[in-house]
Amino acid sequence: MIRTHNAGSLRAADAGSTVTLAGWVARRRDHGGVIFVDLRDGSGVVQVVFREEDAHALRNEFCVKVVGEVTRRPAGNENPELPTGEVEVTVTELEVLSEAAPLPLPVDDQVEAGDDIRLKYRYLDLRRSGPANALRLRSRASHLARGVLHERDFLEIETPTLTRSTPEGARDFLVPVRLQPGSWYALPQSPQLFKQLLMVGGMERYYQIARCYRDEDFRADRQPEFTQLDIEMSFVTEDDVIDLGEAIVSTLWKDLAGHEISGPIPRITWHDAMARYGSDKPDLRYGVELTELTDYLRGTAFRVFAGAIDAGGYVGAVVMPGGAAQSRKELDGWQDWAKARGARGLAYVVLDAETGEARGPVAKNLSAEHLGGLADAVGAKPGDAVFFAASTTTREAQELLGAARVEIAKRSGLIDESAWAFCWVVDAPMFERTDEGGWTAVHHPFTSPNAEWVDRFEEAPDRALAYAYDIVCNGNEIGGGSIRIHRGDVQKRVFDLLGITPEEAQDKFGFLLEAFKYGAPPHGGVAFGWDRVCMLLAGADSIREVIAFPKTRGGFDPLTSAPTPITAQQRTEAGIDAKPKPPATAHTGTAGPAAPVADPV
Amino acid sequence: MIRTHNAGSLRAADAGSTVTLAGWVARRRDHGGVIFVDLRDGSGVVQVVFREEDAHALRNEFCVKVVGEVTRRPAGNENPELPTGEVEVTVTELEVLSEAAPLPLPVDDQVEAGDDIRLKYRYLDLRRSGPANALRLRSRASHLARGVLHERDFLEIETPTLTRSTPEGARDFLVPVRLQPGSWYALPQSPQLFKQLLMVGGMERYYQIARCYRDEDFRADRQPEFTQLDIEMSFVTEDDVIDLGEAIVSTLWKDLAGHEISGPIPRITWHDAMARYGSDKPDLRYGVELTELTDYLRGTAFRVFAGAIDAGGYVGAVVMPGGAAQSRKELDGWQDWAKARGARGLAYVVLDAETGEARGPVAKNLSAEHLGGLADAVGAKPGDAVFFAASTTTREAQELLGAARVEIAKRSGLIDESAWAFCWVVDAPMFERTDEGGWTAVHHPFTSPNAEWVDRFEEAPDRALAYAYDIVCNGNEIGGGSIRIHRGDVQKRVFDLLGITPEEAQDKFGFLLEAFKYGAPPHGGVAFGWDRVCMLLAGADSIREVIAFPKTRGGFDPLTSAPTPITAQQRTEAGIDAKPKPPATAHTGTAGPAAPVADPV
Repeated sequence: MIRTHNAGSLRAADAGSTVTLAGWVARRRDHGGVIFVDLRDGSGVVQVVFREEDAHALRNEFCVKVVGEVTRRPAGNENPELPTGEVEVTVTELEVLSEAAPLPLPVDDQVEAGDDIRLKYRYLDLRRSGPANALRLRSRASHLARGVLHERDFLEIETPTLTRSTPEGARDFLVPVRLQPGSWYALPQSPQLFKQLLMVGGMERYYQIARCYRDEDFRADRQPEFTQLDIEMSFVTEDDVIDLGEAIVSTLWKDLAGHEISGPIPRITWHDAMARYGSDKPDLRYGVELTELTDYLRGTAFRVFAGAIDAGGYVGAVVMPGGAAQSRKELDGWQDWAKARGARGLAYVVLDAETGEARGPVAKNLSAEHLGGLADAVGAKPGDAVFFAASTTTREAQELLGAARVEIAKRSGLIDESAWAFCWVVDAPMFERTDEGGWTAVHHPFTSPNAEWVDRFEEAPDRALAYAYDIVCNGNEIGGGSIRIHRGDVQKRVFDLLGITPEEAQDKFGFLLEAFKYGAPPHGGVAFGWDRVCMLLAGADSIREVIAFPKTRGGFDPLTSAPTPITAQQRTEAGIDAKPKPPATAHTGTAGPAAPVADPV
Repeated sequence: MIRTHNAGSLRAADAGSTVTLAGWVARRRDHGGVIFVDLRDGSGVVQVVFREEDAHALRNEFCVKVVGEVTRRPAGNENPELPTGEVEVTVTELEVLSEAAPLPLPVDDQVEAGDDIRLKYRYLDLRRSGPANALRLRSRASHLARGVLHERDFLEIETPTLTRSTPEGARDFLVPVRLQPGSWYALPQSPQLFKQLLMVGGMERYYQIARCYRDEDFRADRQPEFTQLDIEMSFVTEDDVIDLGEAIVSTLWKDLAGHEISGPIPRITWHDAMARYGSDKPDLRYGVELTELTDYLRGTAFRVFAGAIDAGGYVGAVVMPGGAAQSRKELDGWQDWAKARGARGLAYVVLDAETGEARGPVAKNLSAEHLGGLADAVGAKPGDAVFFAASTTTREAQELLGAARVEIAKRSGLIDESAWAFCWVVDAPMFERTDEGGWTAVHHPFTSPNAEWVDRFEEAPDRALAYAYDIVCNGNEIGGGSIRIHRGDVQKRVFDLLGITPEEAQDKFGFLLEAFKYGAPPHGGVAFGWDRVCMLLAGADSIREVIAFPKTRGGFDPLTSAPTPITAQQRTEAGIDAKPKPPATAHTGTAGPAAPVADPV
């Protein structure tokens, strides 16, 4: 090593030692004949002292090597904020390892800079403590998770990333294959099918921190490539997977967030989560639950509610504590908020802070009895506001109320930003109606119905439940998985219900179905959205903060300017415009798509 | 867990316990009323005993759950070959978890099967102990390497895989970008430039087990995607990187091959390796060194040798111990061997086992003096054969002799297959001549000249040496790296010598050069070819054996049938045929290719 010591490691006990340091000029202060420089390396910062003539040329972010003696700072000059604040290094030799041009982005923790400039000069951005610590945290998170898994005899297995395309689900990224012109690989949306094949192969316990690819329209905070901690186990029940997931989450949060998760993480069924919080990823850092009013309001003359109730739908409400104090403008703002979400509006009443009397646009449409019992029915107090939603589709109304709940918490400052609230959302539904009146799989078509429904999900597909589970942290889904179907007869019945013919099944999932003919073990797994887990642990507000070289919206990399046009020669060589040859016999058979389905993170 | 015990873990001490096992029917033997089944799971095998009527339907590779009592086997029936051989499990309950159709590939360690069928039914292949253990070994190798690196404060950092294409070097795999039609990502040939940017960013110690992609013509044992253990360090010298590499290799070989690497791994300069072994990756499990005869044979009348010598070339020889005993046909075989390598033939003499007299086609062309001193000059004994190579290009002749050396070792059985011989090949040349008479970088244009040459490599580019090093195991290059240039002035001189104009440099390497303006630290690194490392540790003869789902030649996956044609809709959506828009201003600037260069594994 060019250095003998790490700058950040020097202490009073080192006084008298001669040390060689190497790092960057973080800050420079000239004091008539003497120059003080904060020298920064990966370990931290120490003050080094030069005679002026030696250090005359030094500017910010020069990379230097210095030899000097560690001395105690003169009394009164110590800096208690700095771990090295008791000492300084009096330099006897200076070598400039490389100079720095004027900086396009100040390397200063205090300076805010725009994302585009930060990403274009990411190498300068990473010299700041926040971005650097985010990557350090991510490295440690992966190390900790691996520790938990290796302790439990999991094997790390790498699965292919040049694989088979399927036109199903999210769009695949495609890769032309020069050696088979006209043929294309796809980048995997997840290792889902390969991890299931590994279970069929008897590997029993698999994990991988896997790069995944989805060609989606960029919503806020999506990246075209992302990472998941991907896990699959054989001979397990849902409880086993959940226990493992908790071991990982507990280890991470204890070590990296100083948060002890005491006891098992609470489980809530999907239906309860929707009924109580209007969300399948409820934020449990605060209360504010939904109340269903369908029965309570039955018989109302108010057309909006009656319509939903008569059609077998849902009416419900959520209370905003103290919401009656909102101005007319604030209450109108809720209407805009609801419309921005695609709702027609957000019906409400406010309860007078003194009298408890219900007022507001909805109040005059409700009967005296309905108004009189409302506060009790929804658990509201004088001074609160009550927001309503009604729909023929229960889920739609619940989701509007769930979103209102989150917004109430924000506007009313109910969120304890230092809190961590985890839950598992279990017993997810197997199926939901398609727009065409058929059924589609909520999770994916290989997810197993639970024991109660496995023999009779056809009787009430809308009520059939799956062994599917998501883990939620502060309202963010951080992982999810399921127990898979491993029996051919069950799989066939699921396909039948989904309207997938045997021919289609063969075409789409052929190689997995073929594998399942040969003694597939019961198996299940989970995948954590690794970027999101690290983002939460880092206290960051975007996954970009925990990615070394993230892309901006549209998948553009400001640093390398990728993507770019390609040359005509590349295009020709890659066989992009070649017509595919008719498939050779050897290439047919158990063909099927590579990754049409995935644990949903 | 569905099971209470692992099958392979049962011992005599468990006798009397009731256990639940889950696994596969590995073998079944019917003994009139009683059926013995070897039940296999991930931990091993145990014998389970059924009444005939219960187990009637069981066939090979059924996946089953059994409940039963562990009993000691009757005296004389123990199987000392099996860790569980003292016990058996008498089954009281059997549940077939899933059935198995007749097997296309027997799950039997003793059965040889073709690669195509093994890969098509890889999930059955992986139930065999050899393939399963190869993946287990790989998982452990990664775990061990990570341990060494984390102990030394390395950070695991994930770098992008959707990045910028460059038409340089090996071909890139390309990915069309739907959101920027006409633009393409490239899959990285290695994280080389990103890891250097991380060093500029002050991350100081980086590693990643990284997926890399090269669109090469498939030579034997190449995969379109492969894995490297990729490492980069700041403020280091060559010795620091080499020490770290040795720590990793020592740990792996000790744990996984039971081989203790005592003391530092020997280093040999690139020139010595070429001179003594005719290879930059010499197999040191055996002796047999090359001898240069250029001076010895100076003045010979033999046209083939004289021509090379007079042109300033090279004549040399390698001895085949006992080679005089070869038949005429065997000696002729060497000519075919040499021609298959593209040489015109392989000149030789044999030394009579009794008299030591030199005979053979070359003997009559050499003078009595040259023949008389030959045995001493090359270190041959009566009964040996001496093979010659001569060329105006030293390297060409040395490489032919080096290949002959390997072939001699094979044919003469000189290779101790249980031996491990490591070396570092250091002091590689910086430059070599291009066909056009210019210079090209041997490693890559960011590799640093060593201290002796950094200020004067222009004086003799053909002799200038780099801080570049490869680690070799049994004749396989398993890793390589270099110290990089971090000074702009040195980089500019290297580009000048390579004939790269400032404009070209900006266009090709712009974003890295830009980064180097801002206080780049001295840095260097190494990358291990992880597939090859694991292959050697597993004692396998192909990297396919240590890859979960490898592809065959041409990049075809017999399991999923990837790659495939894509649909017209996919083609349109992906923007494959879109014309690129002229670049927006924001997209130009410090643009340069993403990964034109890489540590050479």
